[in-house]
Amino acid sequence: MLDSLKSLLPGKVSTTPADLEAHGKDESYPLQRPPLAVVYAENLTDVQATLAWARENRVPVIPFGAGTSLEGQLIPQGPALSLDLSRMNRILQIAPEDFLAVVEPGVTRKALNEALKGTGLFFPVDPGADASLGGMAATNASGTTTVRYGGMRPNVLALQVVLASGEVLELGRAVRKTSAGYDLKDLFIGSEGTLGIITRLTLRLHPLPEHVHTLRVFFKNLEAAAQAAYSVMASGLPVARLELVDARGIAAINRYLERSYPERPALFVEFHSSSREALQAESRLALELMQGAGTLSVDAAQTQEERTAQWEARHQAYWALVNLYPGKAYLSTDTAVPISKMPALVAYASRLLGEMNLQGSILGHVGDGNFHTLVVFEPGEAKAEAFSERLVEHTLALGGTCTGEHGVGLRKKKFLPKEHGPALSWMRQIKGLFDPEGLLNPGKIFD
Amino acid sequence: MLDSLKSLLPGKVSTTPADLEAHGKDESYPLQRPPLAVVYAENLTDVQATLAWARENRVPVIPFGAGTSLEGQLIPQGPALSLDLSRMNRILQIAPEDFLAVVEPGVTRKALNEALKGTGLFFPVDPGADASLGGMAATNASGTTTVRYGGMRPNVLALQVVLASGEVLELGRAVRKTSAGYDLKDLFIGSEGTLGIITRLTLRLHPLPEHVHTLRVFFKNLEAAAQAAYSVMASGLPVARLELVDARGIAAINRYLERSYPERPALFVEFHSSSREALQAESRLALELMQGAGTLSVDAAQTQEERTAQWEARHQAYWALVNLYPGKAYLSTDTAVPISKMPALVAYASRLLGEMNLQGSILGHVGDGNFHTLVVFEPGEAKAEAFSERLVEHTLALGGTCTGEHGVGLRKKKFLPKEHGPALSWMRQIKGLFDPEGLLNPGKIFD
Repeated sequence: MLDSLKSLLPGKVSTTPADLEAHGKDESYPLQRPPLAVVYAENLTDVQATLAWARENRVPVIPFGAGTSLEGQLIPQGPALSLDLSRMNRILQIAPEDFLAVVEPGVTRKALNEALKGTGLFFPVDPGADASLGGMAATNASGTTTVRYGGMRPNVLALQVVLASGEVLELGRAVRKTSAGYDLKDLFIGSEGTLGIITRLTLRLHPLPEHVHTLRVFFKNLEAAAQAAYSVMASGLPVARLELVDARGIAAINRYLERSYPERPALFVEFHSSSREALQAESRLALELMQGAGTLSVDAAQTQEERTAQWEARHQAYWALVNLYPGKAYLSTDTAVPISKMPALVAYASRLLGEMNLQGSILGHVGDGNFHTLVVFEPGEAKAEAFSERLVEHTLALGGTCTGEHGVGLRKKKFLPKEHGPALSWMRQIKGLFDPEGLLNPGKIFD
Repeated sequence: MLDSLKSLLPGKVSTTPADLEAHGKDESYPLQRPPLAVVYAENLTDVQATLAWARENRVPVIPFGAGTSLEGQLIPQGPALSLDLSRMNRILQIAPEDFLAVVEPGVTRKALNEALKGTGLFFPVDPGADASLGGMAATNASGTTTVRYGGMRPNVLALQVVLASGEVLELGRAVRKTSAGYDLKDLFIGSEGTLGIITRLTLRLHPLPEHVHTLRVFFKNLEAAAQAAYSVMASGLPVARLELVDARGIAAINRYLERSYPERPALFVEFHSSSREALQAESRLALELMQGAGTLSVDAAQTQEERTAQWEARHQAYWALVNLYPGKAYLSTDTAVPISKMPALVAYASRLLGEMNLQGSILGHVGDGNFHTLVVFEPGEAKAEAFSERLVEHTLALGGTCTGEHGVGLRKKKFLPKEHGPALSWMRQIKGLFDPEGLLNPGKIFD
């Protein structure tokens, strides 16, 4: 069967064990399953040819960007092709005068920002990993700067997508505003490859801030740090990043990256401004608010290098923690709640770890009410999943969501009936409309 | 037939000529047609009862908020009920700690902002008219502050909607971020009552700016004003409003509101900041940039009253212009283009008015690349529509959209095939999925 695929796409189909293994897993989901083959698409025609073959042979297709998803989005649930888009990595246009870039889906966020050097602009969505922009749109990624610049939806203006049928659609327009009909662009963003394959993105760029001020603030306990984060947000100050790392996370960073931060719960905070005076005023007010919640010490990054080092530390916290526990399994929750409920949910998660006798670390985007609990457990043990269920249950009761940014994939499917109620069946019906044969990433988001 | 409706909803169904007339028109569309009856829904149950009756009697339903739409969204295309939601005007919750408000669809934006007094928060979307928030979501409204705060999509976090079947869906969550499945909330925003009836909205609130600086800047000609607006946007300065009014618009405002502004093309500009120093630095830089494009004079509002007067003038420009030409008909275009293309499109629109020997005025949200050309013509004359077609043609060729904020309604339907290509048929299919009998606002967006 694969011979016909190979002759359809000569030199672009791989079945080497290394390729199959690399495309049968993601960065966090515990199970793996290799695809039948990996197709390395180089252009739109390759994507359409792959889909034509998939329709004829009734083999599902899973789009693959950089492989950095966390919830099992890339893992076949049966015989399937992995459609690797990493060779579609051309930056098609940079239009600084319009704050726009047009890219193929395999361009990574770092590659784009590298290409933007000298324009005074950047693409702000920053999930930590050097994810592909197509994958980031597919999972509606966000990250440390979302509190200021938003996630993928406001920063992707238009998409080209290929449906299971091979039909090519252009969704959205390269404008700041449009009210011309249904918003299909945002429907495809976050659909995790289940509605279509993203083959081109038009992205919104932002001016690099002229002035940046970055702080590390350490607190006596986790509750104080969470409360301080809430106080800063409640003040309406225009923070650009506001990240919580608990004491265990700081300890892991110290060990993994050879840092010597105080091993206490910390907030990593950043302000962006076009004016130095505004920046100083904002930072000063933020510090006063945080001191009210009980700071132990404050440390400001003085140079660009120090800033980069601070955010590298935050981004590596996940890997630092994983590294602390070799041989263990780990699970990361991704709850988000209305901002005022965040301190209570942080406290709940912390208490629940203790109650359930689990090791774990709490960190994340508290400025958005979104944080992760990285739970460490013995492979095969059910306790971490039970923790996740209890935390999501509590989150939903507070009006929150089971996933702020990682998406649903395989792991969060079970929470959607409760989160969405009857709306979930309409999501399924939309899936059935666009992909009646269930060829596109089946078994993700819903069964 | 209507007797059964009246007995189903006693005291809530009107067929008085005044009610029928008021519900058979909007603020701009030239044709009118009264509905069969007006139902004044007071709660969710009334909405469901109306839809049940409509299904049984195969009579379409058109949701009606404040009646301020501009493209014919409210006008029956055959026998239909108008479902007036203005009595569903309760503010259900204000949660300043979460920057949230929960409202019924008939609450107007001004009523909400009135209720928010004292909280230090406001709801920023400002289309000029005192529209209902349900209607604003239905048409994906935006306005003068969108350049800073975004339009309805980022400012509506969740919706309750009732489908044609009577089924109630809760879409979105009251959180800043979620990646839990398909984005149905944004699908319903901008669907103009064709997919469901909005019965509740969860809105995102913003801190009132501590410092506001408002300028009126007058230019030697329209091209200079448009170019100045582009220079300000290209600099990345965080403007909160950036509005163009041409000389004819200023003259109309002077006459209608008894002002004495210089009758020259003007930019109305506003900055919001938490710091006075930042505000001064930003305004200064903006002024320098505008002076480079050729300013004649600059005028800063010194007090809150002056600011309010300035924005009232901008908001009343449409009515001021209409008032200049009693007995004439008028049509407002709503094109938006990538920001660098805006000066050229403004020049094109101005030239085209002259070429076609039409009177008109150019004004709007140039900071978003979105502006309106208000064309005045003799009732029955086809020239204004021909103007609109040529302008939209040119706009689409520049990568723009036929409607930045007014929506499609009846008037923009003909442009969608060209703007969306094959994606339009998928919008139709989604319509067919949610409303297979075509009960909800038929004939709007597409036939």
